[in-house]
Amino acid sequence: MAERRLGIIMNGVTGRMGTNQHLVRSILEIRNEGGLPLKDGTRVVPDPILVGRNEDKLRRLAQRYEVARWTTDLDGALADKKDEVFFDAASTQLRAGLVKKAIAAGKHVYVEKPTADTFEDAYEIYKLAEKAGIKHGVVQDKVYLPGLRKLKMLLEAGFFGRILSVRIDFGYWVFEGDLQPIQRPSWNYRKKDGGGLILDMIPHWQYVIGQTFGDIKSLVCHAVNDIPKRWDENGEAFAADTDDSAYAILQLANGITAQINFSWCVRVRRDDLVTFKVDGTKGSAVAGLHDCWTQANVNTPRPIWNPDARVNADYFADWQLMPDTQAFTNAFRIEWEMFIRHLFGEGEWRHGLLEGAKGLQLVEAAHRSNRERKWIDLEKLA
Amino acid sequence: MAERRLGIIMNGVTGRMGTNQHLVRSILEIRNEGGLPLKDGTRVVPDPILVGRNEDKLRRLAQRYEVARWTTDLDGALADKKDEVFFDAASTQLRAGLVKKAIAAGKHVYVEKPTADTFEDAYEIYKLAEKAGIKHGVVQDKVYLPGLRKLKMLLEAGFFGRILSVRIDFGYWVFEGDLQPIQRPSWNYRKKDGGGLILDMIPHWQYVIGQTFGDIKSLVCHAVNDIPKRWDENGEAFAADTDDSAYAILQLANGITAQINFSWCVRVRRDDLVTFKVDGTKGSAVAGLHDCWTQANVNTPRPIWNPDARVNADYFADWQLMPDTQAFTNAFRIEWEMFIRHLFGEGEWRHGLLEGAKGLQLVEAAHRSNRERKWIDLEKLA
Amino acid sequence: MAERRLGIIMNGVTGRMGTNQHLVRSILEIRNEGGLPLKDGTRVVPDPILVGRNEDKLRRLAQRYEVARWTTDLDGALADKKDEVFFDAASTQLRAGLVKKAIAAGKHVYVEKPTADTFEDAYEIYKLAEKAGIKHGVVQDKVYLPGLRKLKMLLEAGFFGRILSVRIDFGYWVFEGDLQPIQRPSWNYRKKDGGGLILDMIPHWQYVIGQTFGDIKSLVCHAVNDIPKRWDENGEAFAADTDDSAYAILQLANGITAQINFSWCVRVRRDDLVTFKVDGTKGSAVAGLHDCWTQANVNTPRPIWNPDARVNADYFADWQLMPDTQAFTNAFRIEWEMFIRHLFGEGEWRHGLLEGAKGLQLVEAAHRSNRERKWIDLEKLA
Amino acid sequence: MAERRLGIIMNGVTGRMGTNQHLVRSILEIRNEGGLPLKDGTRVVPDPILVGRNEDKLRRLAQRYEVARWTTDLDGALADKKDEVFFDAASTQLRAGLVKKAIAAGKHVYVEKPTADTFEDAYEIYKLAEKAGIKHGVVQDKVYLPGLRKLKMLLEAGFFGRILSVRIDFGYWVFEGDLQPIQRPSWNYRKKDGGGLILDMIPHWQYVIGQTFGDIKSLVCHAVNDIPKRWDENGEAFAADTDDSAYAILQLANGITAQINFSWCVRVRRDDLVTFKVDGTKGSAVAGLHDCWTQANVNTPRPIWNPDARVNADYFADWQLMPDTQAFTNAFRIEWEMFIRHLFGEGEWRHGLLEGAKGLQLVEAAHRSNRERKWIDLEKLA
Repeated sequence: MAERRLGIIMNGVTGRMGTNQHLVRSILEIRNEGGLPLKDGTRVVPDPILVGRNEDKLRRLAQRYEVARWTTDLDGALADKKDEVFFDAASTQLRAGLVKKAIAAGKHVYVEKPTADTFEDAYEIYKLAEKAGIKHGVVQDKVYLPGLRKLKMLLEAGFFGRILSVRIDFGYWVFEGDLQPIQRPSWNYRKKDGGGLILDMIPHWQYVIGQTFGDIKSLVCHAVNDIPKRWDENGEAFAADTDDSAYAILQLANGITAQINFSWCVRVRRDDLVTFKVDGTKGSAVAGLHDCWTQANVNTPRPIWNPDARVNADYFADWQLMPDTQAFTNAFRIEWEMFIRHLFGEGEWRHGLLEGAKGLQLVEAAHRSNRERKWIDLEKLA
Repeated sequence: MAERRLGIIMNGVTGRMGTNQHLVRSILEIRNEGGLPLKDGTRVVPDPILVGRNEDKLRRLAQRYEVARWTTDLDGALADKKDEVFFDAASTQLRAGLVKKAIAAGKHVYVEKPTADTFEDAYEIYKLAEKAGIKHGVVQDKVYLPGLRKLKMLLEAGFFGRILSVRIDFGYWVFEGDLQPIQRPSWNYRKKDGGGLILDMIPHWQYVIGQTFGDIKSLVCHAVNDIPKRWDENGEAFAADTDDSAYAILQLANGITAQINFSWCVRVRRDDLVTFKVDGTKGSAVAGLHDCWTQANVNTPRPIWNPDARVNADYFADWQLMPDTQAFTNAFRIEWEMFIRHLFGEGEWRHGLLEGAKGLQLVEAAHRSNRERKWIDLEKLA
Repeated sequence: MAERRLGIIMNGVTGRMGTNQHLVRSILEIRNEGGLPLKDGTRVVPDPILVGRNEDKLRRLAQRYEVARWTTDLDGALADKKDEVFFDAASTQLRAGLVKKAIAAGKHVYVEKPTADTFEDAYEIYKLAEKAGIKHGVVQDKVYLPGLRKLKMLLEAGFFGRILSVRIDFGYWVFEGDLQPIQRPSWNYRKKDGGGLILDMIPHWQYVIGQTFGDIKSLVCHAVNDIPKRWDENGEAFAADTDDSAYAILQLANGITAQINFSWCVRVRRDDLVTFKVDGTKGSAVAGLHDCWTQANVNTPRPIWNPDARVNADYFADWQLMPDTQAFTNAFRIEWEMFIRHLFGEGEWRHGLLEGAKGLQLVEAAHRSNRERKWIDLEKLA
Repeated sequence: MAERRLGIIMNGVTGRMGTNQHLVRSILEIRNEGGLPLKDGTRVVPDPILVGRNEDKLRRLAQRYEVARWTTDLDGALADKKDEVFFDAASTQLRAGLVKKAIAAGKHVYVEKPTADTFEDAYEIYKLAEKAGIKHGVVQDKVYLPGLRKLKMLLEAGFFGRILSVRIDFGYWVFEGDLQPIQRPSWNYRKKDGGGLILDMIPHWQYVIGQTFGDIKSLVCHAVNDIPKRWDENGEAFAADTDDSAYAILQLANGITAQINFSWCVRVRRDDLVTFKVDGTKGSAVAGLHDCWTQANVNTPRPIWNPDARVNADYFADWQLMPDTQAFTNAFRIEWEMFIRHLFGEGEWRHGLLEGAKGLQLVEAAHRSNRERKWIDLEKLA
């Protein structure tokens, strides 16, 4: 069978997510399995070149995973015609600029979210990419989580009837860092370093809701800075000055209401660290990262409201766990495979830079709603 | 020991709630136990007269529970000087008018919530009651639910540290009435009959939040009419034209954020039909109607976000059920006893008609926020 | 990055504890990981020389763990200026003498507890070490056990409110050696060989209590020789003439009462081989070696004393297991790392020879209380 | 079969313990079953006369349980020759005086513990009773608890081999009365009302230890007032000025060591509200109020002390629950039956007033040890 080499410039994959999900679990696994087969049997074999600023880290990463090529010279890498794809998982603040360079160099681009710092930049790189005629994409892995794929299956099966509402509960307690060490990067809690819950999570909610339930029409969002003091990775106290809890209500164009509670300052008493609850006329479901529980209208109990006596009702017992009827591959790899096929004109592709721009549009609407204390309508992007 | 008779005009107690909670579990139990003892040993013995429009229902109710007096003539009852208290659990739409009459007749008044149709009326009857120098009160039973009393104990114990947020989840699926008979009065779903979820529940949220967590400063509320067609008690279809799902975000004066999801169109996957979740710096708790679960900061697990593999974490296992360390009397009876003591100048009384008016104030603010699509600030009542 | 060699004379590490905890799990692990990083990035790489009396044992140990240097000539080792630290885990009876030699040779010293045979000697070597200006320390590993670190976290979190009492239960059944082989060194049960429970364990209780709960003001201690005949490692009967069970009550300067039951003649029906129970106004906890269970005041059940009927109360069910929110490194290694940092002027150091002397002071007070049958006050050491 | 009426003056049985245990569960049950059969078949039928100060309470108690006779005139009752036994469960402070009167009136006496306020009085009434030649006794019900009877059976079976030690753990958390209502009489915590833990519990420990394990030779006792402020039955704060936690070490004449921790300020993490642990050369046992668990030397595990890794040892699993091989009657009734038989010269009787005096002797020794901070030897009573 024919092999087709695919040179991929991977920028900023020395971080935990970049290394584990993009490099090891996606690109290297595809390479080590002999490449990704296209319809005609040709196998596309990724040939990554690692790019970063820390030579030491790059060398060790390359050695450990047997990657032949690495460099600290990004411009040099972009100049090499044999590498066709530019992937970026480095800092958000530099992203849009790098993408413009890559487009100018004729590369296809695939990037982590958010695709830029501002909606303006995110929309501009989308326009540039379209104009240049290159293929482009943004990482939107959450829709490929097993839990959300099960929800999607319920939707396709018509299980819900007419969907009335979606409730998303996300969050857990991020240790302040005094009693127990903090378990997320401390920059997440500093404004000057690009921190903040809305910027981190709203892009996810945008594509999960948009691609699963429908276009978002308007929202009201309220953000809070619940914990103003934290201790960093070295145990040093610092001012935590960004939003770390947020509450949003969204109206979708199709009439569905979505409500989102997301926070790094809540203790978890629910099925998973994030849950998606859908209520429809014919049935309801709750999905976590991997599992999904259903309750059809015919299985809905008649609740007894009894303030006098303890009702020993177990409101979890009336739900049914969905079985795993298929293997769920790593979400990042699924999307990488779709992107590679898309490069060769195969398969559907719903994750272009316009989708990335929508994430930033919602981030800015959320910030504005929070400031102006009112609902914000979202303009339909052309 | 001395006995003191207390004549109570009970209007509109033929309904389920009025009969069970106010008449049987409260007034008649107190009577049958020989009255309520005051500090000097005097026992106050309630002597109710039942008032209503349906003579037949009244007679049967009086016979069944051995109540000597009943009448359909409310004006006659109000004219009798020997009855000192007017209690009303009949329709909201007539309430303010009846209360005015009772005040004019020199009665003390105690009424179900909402205390009137509009904030204006609710505030007016408060002012009239104060001017007349009578004792007055509104039923605010929910704060005496065992679950909320346990939350209150946690607050008094300083368990939470600084409270950050309160999340209220209320609701269950009210059957449309086609497959299964509707399990709530159908008028709740008709605007012209005084229906609507906001009018029904916001007064409860007002006093539960206000008396447990602190004064409400402002809110944004979004109301939806999820199910536009239902079938009534007789199986007849009707247009269900009121709000049956609502979403609110509230700011308290002390900095706490409260989020409320309330709906008659959700299927229940949580600990109880209503849950109150409180997250604080030192601990969190979730209370239902009767039970309450706690998780202190020192018992907070370090969550693992693993999109790759199913994490067999049981996020319910890290919570501890609070023990029952005292008997929890019926919430309605607790408040009746407090009101009777208040009539004789004993004990604290936090449930006057001003509190009832605050419920209507919040109802109107919620409706206005929903119409104008923005946050509404609440004026501080004098 | 710069490397800094640290020569360490390790005396008496052929025993089980010395080999496993000090050599293998501490010094060699640090060496094999490339050294301990200081703040400026310099890595301190331990270079041990093993010292002992049994040449054969030394050689085999050195070969097995790839230690280049070993000798039976302690004086020679002390004379070598390139080795800066003297560590001693050999017999207690010789310790003070060796430490004096090491101090005279200009070495820093780090030793197992007890730091001497008598308080007088222990205090003298502390004074000598201070005068010589060397760095010094004593092994006090127990405070770094996961269970005690969790207790410490509870303390720091203010979980207990005001602490009332601490109860320590230590011990297990040491087989006499007739039916089953004895599972501890037989010298522990012979006075002439430095045996005895008080001498073995009181130094631990001293620093655990002193460093976790507060300074000890006075104690009463009762020691017993429960089993007067045992069989040694070779199955030979011998007179077991030391204390093998002891009971102590302690008053701390801050008003806390501590009670200790420790024994080699008890069968274990508790959570662990040693348990530390703390009761405070706001909560209680029980810690074992690794785990810790909590019960807050708000989760304290109302016990029912019913001598008539079996109450099916499970008094273990009301306690909550603390989660592991961080990795707990080996306690010995933690203290070695702290000592090495201390050598280079970094970090806090609470385990100097004065602390070791306090252990002996308490040992002698316990023996005296046992002889004189009264409470003994502890002099505050300068 | 012949019936023999036994007139019993029951003084002070309107309290909870007096009513439930002595009147209802003992005397009335024996009466209602037709009396207690003696060896010759005669049935002794108790005919109680209730004596107290509150006429109202007495009348209601007598009516409720169908007791024909009651009076507030104790002197009159003592003057009636037809009543032969004087039983007293009223206040400790008046007890010795009443017993003297009863002895003077020729009654047999049976009383609750403590038998007097002071050892002097307790010993005096013993001497007087002996001189008068009457039968006498003190309530010492705890030795008839199922758990202690099972321990006794183990002793008789030689299960323990030589007993080395006994450890008693007693106590639970008595609510302060602020968050939850206090669950014991508030006078227990006031010195002027005869409160205090030592006075309440030491008499129990005296006879339980003395009659089960052997004579007490000496003790050291340390008492603490852990909680200085409580709220009484009416929610009023008061100064709680008595000992509410105590720690004792005892030497028995036969060489056994007994250690007792008893407290109203501990949270319970053990098998029962009180546990008795016995360790012997051949086996150990732990008894609660009803149950008893055993571990023989041949079932004793070899414990692994591993500070490095969590040992998943379940130290409760190696113990065996003793089966219930007989019905365990109410402990109070057992002793009443023994006393009645003793009146008629049948059976053994170990609970005379000398035993009661020993309880007071130990109370005073405990108080003295606490004051003088040393061990106190107990004089052997003639």
